[in-house]
Amino acid sequence: MVRQRTVRIESGVTTRVVYVVGTEMIVNVHRSAPPQSKSFGVQCSSAVQFQISPPTQDAFPLPLTGASFLHITMDSASKHANADKLSVTYYGKDKEELGKAILHLTAIEISLDVDADRDGVVEKNNAHKASWKWGPNGHGAILLVNCDSEWVYKKRQDCEIDKITKSSDLADMSQMLLRTSGPAELPEGYKITLHISQSDSGKIGVFQKDKSLSVLNYPLVLGQKRLSHVVKYTGGASETEFFVEGRRFPDEDFPGLVTINLSLLEPSTPGFPETPIFTDTVVFRVAPWIMTPNTLRPLEVFVCSTRDNFQFLKGMKELVSRCGIKMKMCYENMNRGDRWMQDELEFGYIQAPHHSFPVVLDSPRDGDLKDFPYEELLGPDFGYVTRVAWNEKVSSLDSFGNLEVSPPVTVNGKVYPLGRIIIGCAFPTASQGRNMTKVVQDFLWAQKVQSPVALFSDWLYVGHVDEFMTFVPAPDRKGFRLLLASPDAGYKLFRGLQKAGHGKAKMFEGMKEQISVEAILSNKRLQEENNFVQSCIDWNRDVLKKELGLEDEDIIDLPILFKLEKNKRAVAYYPDMVNMIVLGKNVGIPKPYGPKVGGSCALEAEMCSLLKELGLNCTFIDDFAAYHKLLGEVHCGSNVRREPFAYKWWELEL
Amino acid sequence: MVRQRTVRIESGVTTRVVYVVGTEMIVNVHRSAPPQSKSFGVQCSSAVQFQISPPTQDAFPLPLTGASFLHITMDSASKHANADKLSVTYYGKDKEELGKAILHLTAIEISLDVDADRDGVVEKNNAHKASWKWGPNGHGAILLVNCDSEWVYKKRQDCEIDKITKSSDLADMSQMLLRTSGPAELPEGYKITLHISQSDSGKIGVFQKDKSLSVLNYPLVLGQKRLSHVVKYTGGASETEFFVEGRRFPDEDFPGLVTINLSLLEPSTPGFPETPIFTDTVVFRVAPWIMTPNTLRPLEVFVCSTRDNFQFLKGMKELVSRCGIKMKMCYENMNRGDRWMQDELEFGYIQAPHHSFPVVLDSPRDGDLKDFPYEELLGPDFGYVTRVAWNEKVSSLDSFGNLEVSPPVTVNGKVYPLGRIIIGCAFPTASQGRNMTKVVQDFLWAQKVQSPVALFSDWLYVGHVDEFMTFVPAPDRKGFRLLLASPDAGYKLFRGLQKAGHGKAKMFEGMKEQISVEAILSNKRLQEENNFVQSCIDWNRDVLKKELGLEDEDIIDLPILFKLEKNKRAVAYYPDMVNMIVLGKNVGIPKPYGPKVGGSCALEAEMCSLLKELGLNCTFIDDFAAYHKLLGEVHCGSNVRREPFAYKWWELEL
Repeated sequence: MVRQRTVRIESGVTTRVVYVVGTEMIVNVHRSAPPQSKSFGVQCSSAVQFQISPPTQDAFPLPLTGASFLHITMDSASKHANADKLSVTYYGKDKEELGKAILHLTAIEISLDVDADRDGVVEKNNAHKASWKWGPNGHGAILLVNCDSEWVYKKRQDCEIDKITKSSDLADMSQMLLRTSGPAELPEGYKITLHISQSDSGKIGVFQKDKSLSVLNYPLVLGQKRLSHVVKYTGGASETEFFVEGRRFPDEDFPGLVTINLSLLEPSTPGFPETPIFTDTVVFRVAPWIMTPNTLRPLEVFVCSTRDNFQFLKGMKELVSRCGIKMKMCYENMNRGDRWMQDELEFGYIQAPHHSFPVVLDSPRDGDLKDFPYEELLGPDFGYVTRVAWNEKVSSLDSFGNLEVSPPVTVNGKVYPLGRIIIGCAFPTASQGRNMTKVVQDFLWAQKVQSPVALFSDWLYVGHVDEFMTFVPAPDRKGFRLLLASPDAGYKLFRGLQKAGHGKAKMFEGMKEQISVEAILSNKRLQEENNFVQSCIDWNRDVLKKELGLEDEDIIDLPILFKLEKNKRAVAYYPDMVNMIVLGKNVGIPKPYGPKVGGSCALEAEMCSLLKELGLNCTFIDDFAAYHKLLGEVHCGSNVRREPFAYKWWELEL
Repeated sequence: MVRQRTVRIESGVTTRVVYVVGTEMIVNVHRSAPPQSKSFGVQCSSAVQFQISPPTQDAFPLPLTGASFLHITMDSASKHANADKLSVTYYGKDKEELGKAILHLTAIEISLDVDADRDGVVEKNNAHKASWKWGPNGHGAILLVNCDSEWVYKKRQDCEIDKITKSSDLADMSQMLLRTSGPAELPEGYKITLHISQSDSGKIGVFQKDKSLSVLNYPLVLGQKRLSHVVKYTGGASETEFFVEGRRFPDEDFPGLVTINLSLLEPSTPGFPETPIFTDTVVFRVAPWIMTPNTLRPLEVFVCSTRDNFQFLKGMKELVSRCGIKMKMCYENMNRGDRWMQDELEFGYIQAPHHSFPVVLDSPRDGDLKDFPYEELLGPDFGYVTRVAWNEKVSSLDSFGNLEVSPPVTVNGKVYPLGRIIIGCAFPTASQGRNMTKVVQDFLWAQKVQSPVALFSDWLYVGHVDEFMTFVPAPDRKGFRLLLASPDAGYKLFRGLQKAGHGKAKMFEGMKEQISVEAILSNKRLQEENNFVQSCIDWNRDVLKKELGLEDEDIIDLPILFKLEKNKRAVAYYPDMVNMIVLGKNVGIPKPYGPKVGGSCALEAEMCSLLKELGLNCTFIDDFAAYHKLLGEVHCGSNVRREPFAYKWWELEL
């Protein structure tokens, strides 16, 4: 619908108005007619078009009715202010002239433009720029939270700084153009302003390009406490360039959409606010933070170096170099002995049509590794985001070994091309129990594009989902398998060993924990504990099947036993092989120290056999002393930054 | 998709499980096989069905693979606990028996049922009961906020009381049934519980029918601080009846949906929570509060009786009795001189398939009339809701003369069958100015079904939209007309009078304010003030055209002049005729005291002429001394309770 504006005229008076090309001015001819007017005529200069409603067959003069309206339009901008004219002449019953109302018109063209078609280029006046629609046929511009830091020393996140002084920072922002065309000057008192709502003001920053300076220094013109900004009208055909950044990620109280308005203001009665006679609106969505599943190509592996983990690092280095990627070390001065690289942070990324960069989500866990994400990772094109648990108790379930993401799945016809986030929680019927903090859960839900699934992980002593599950790539079916720890599969393997005459074979051979297969199988209490663990994992198995649309054939049970601690929560009985690192076709598995048959470990052999069918190469990494004994394994002690999805999140149909 | 549950079996062990009809139990045959098992056979009692995956052509025994699963179902409830059986026998390579795993099964039927098809009757196990969909083909049950009071004395809203003791209260609630079928008793340790989330707990109350008592006294079983409730299993085929009430209206932090879960819990390892092996879910939407436009049939008219408003009451009584409806008087002991019946409250209603009743929205204005809505209106089948402005300044814009609703409209193809709410605000570009409080605006937006339109009313001294607009029924076009105050139409009429020789005719004849048409027309300042007022109204006119999909032909300009007070805000120059009461085809208009021509008032004649075309009868009510001089008129001093829409809100496509 064409935007309409009611304009008053007065008989005997010349009214000066500014007209915006593309709109329609409506004049109530009857309302301003002198008494006893019976008919009227309209004259105008060549650039002005008008229609009369109701339509009439009469040529001249036209009959004046209570419903006589003029619809006035112009096709292009005026060369000079007040250069175009329209007059309405009123006639009495003998066609005598009773009065004349005159309009002086100044036409201008205005549009506030963004990349609403998502091709990385700002087009002109996109018809859909004021709304946002998901999907491949969707529309609406996209903002990145400018959460990286162009500075390496004395750094702050760029979105905390109210000016732009580095050209590299511009790449993180979305371009916005104000295009105007018209006479050299606007009639007196008219103004063009950009404005945002109070509620959007903390969520974006808008900077204006200043061509007059020799050094780059663009000021913030809209943002916190800056709700409106007068833009200088420069005359002729001109463009004013703005750069827009996101300043907050979507969250529980922020669905992610922000609106920027441009208004042309007309002077009003002194003491009253100017009237907006034309408003153009653009909408941006702040890009969500996206996690990367094990099936995406690894780029970098992060581990901690500690006094006692030489054996682990050796195994990891060999594995990582075999994959042809880089291993990044966090040294003891930074990690202060905290080796749980998986738990302090989660790697993800943000993406817009014009740019994309990795973003680390810093956990509220805040162990001794807590400074690493900000101090070591944040930098140029490496963003940072965290959530602080102000009023909540942080538990072990806030470590990001308890935050994973599935590969892409389809569930009952609903497609999740970016997979689904997986978190561990207290049991749904438990009145108490540990949980991931609400601030982090709310953040994850609010990103929308990887709709989370809540599992039950509070049955574990440490309480992380990576203690009983992982995903590995597969050449067939859905492109992956879900691996689940399975005490039943463990007992089956041990019973088979016994049956085959290997009952005396020993786990943990040569260590003080050394124990025979027979001894394990004769421990009734251990069997009961594992039955309980299996039922906990089976409960999660059913949830995962339902929420990820999996069949039993998509799941592989790994032979892993658990035992219960005094508080009745479970820990792995031997190195928890499901807690692996997945690097393409190479997987790094905690060396299980299982019973040896013919000189080779029966657990390793079983793992190799299960994963070989998927074309995966197993490397067993000795994490016994430095990780397993501290209740973590290979996955807990490492982290992988991966390539973003090829799929663009805005093409989701939400 | 059928709900699946993974069940463990063990060779040499009998496992007892409860099965819920309609679900599927999955048994991993391989996982529990004794070592060296090569094949297996399955036997079961007649009530049990099973399928084997992967499907096999072999008859007996069946080859055992790593992916051998049983899918077990039963068609109906068991007569006795553990009466049904299934066994898996494992065989070695020479078909020798290696072991047998036995399942004892107890099948039960469970469903939690509501009126998800919205016909007023609770059907059995509606397939869509766990979700809510708008529209004529939608589904999902509906709750009323139980905001009336069954008590007339010492009253409280029913939803504040944690028991039901009056049978009339049951009509305000939605029935919910738990239907079960099974053996006389559940196997030991199994429990059925109803449960709700913490966040829903303040939003609903669930009461359980107790047939054992001779007097009606149903306890609250779910609600604030009562998140779960164990329901006694009674055996055989039985129904347990619950009554559910809403306790909060939709609001900014509450989209209106609540979920009630029913879980069957299986005993687990001692010290651990029971495991839910089956969960049934129902969803309700809390019915929104709905306003009634002027085009709906009036039922009751409310006015205040004060020391000085005899003249007004006389006019109103005549009008109301002509309409054949009741006039309800609020006397001085209650109104304490506050005559602004329009401003303290707004009438609306709530509706569910089973019941509907009126609900008054009490304004945070809280003038001397503040006790009237609660003390006089709240009662059996008359609900009450209010919003308290805890941290906000309440202004004149919070009076409900500033809250109206349009008749049904269609805007660019989008249908609003319940019309759109209209509120008055500060001007969008003004950095300051009065506004309706956020709590009230949030409440109105959250009702969703009458999507609000914000107008600019802060240019008025009092600041209410009913000072410049109203809607009247019409036999043609969209079924109504928008009436707008128009200073231009006023000046046109006065100039016409002057031209016709009535320049000496006097407004306010015989009063101290008496003034001639000539004198009015020669007041340049008044003309300028009215030009400003016209531009303010025209701005609103353009918004209303756009947001209600109106054309100029849907709007009638009424000849009304304004003047500006010292603070530059406008008040009506003579009784503001647009501030009328609309009762079907009869409208009560403030008597304007306009200039007389041939003995009759020219303004009244013009109004009659304009409205006669719509088939409306005008009654002019003298509100000059008791209302107009106090800056209000007929509409401000009255309120109308109307019939609900025939259209059901849940049939909206939102």
